[in-house]
Amino acid sequence: MTFDVVVEVRLRPGIADPQGATIERALPALGFDGVSSVGVGKSIRFTLESADEESARAELADLCERFLSNPVIEDSEITLTPVAS
Amino acid sequence: MTFDVVVEVRLRPGIADPQGATIERALPALGFDGVSSVGVGKSIRFTLESADEESARAELADLCERFLSNPVIEDSEITLTPVAS
Repeated sequence: MTFDVVVEVRLRPGIADPQGATIERALPALGFDGVSSVGVGKSIRFTLESADEESARAELADLCERFLSNPVIEDSEITLTPVAS
Repeated sequence: MTFDVVVEVRLRPGIADPQGATIERALPALGFDGVSSVGVGKSIRFTLESADEESARAELADLCERFLSNPVIEDSEITLTPVAS
């Protein structure tokens, strides 16, 4: 089975996010008010071939924890969509 | 009204994505097969205060085009969720 996968990796609550803080500080001067709590993360999209959804989820959980994110400071959220084949 | 906003910024098709290519090349050696078409983008989350959904969408479209993405090489996708107040 083929799946479209989106992994969103974002900093855990409480971890300093200088990119987000910079965006938040800059926007009012650029004419955008009302924006707060800015957080910047990564979004990784790919196609995964796997036997079934269960094995795909197991492989993805392992992949995220070991390579795509740093679980000490980051959380990851996996979205899996089967592709009609 | 308050909205939770997620902006996903990703490279347009055809634009070189060295981060994605590196992940794709590295994974088989690390024991993960079946992963292809890897693309790495940014995901920006924030809270937006705006009069109504229409004005929020207009402001976000402008914000994305002018500051959060480079429309020459990047596409952005906006997801807006009203927050119960």
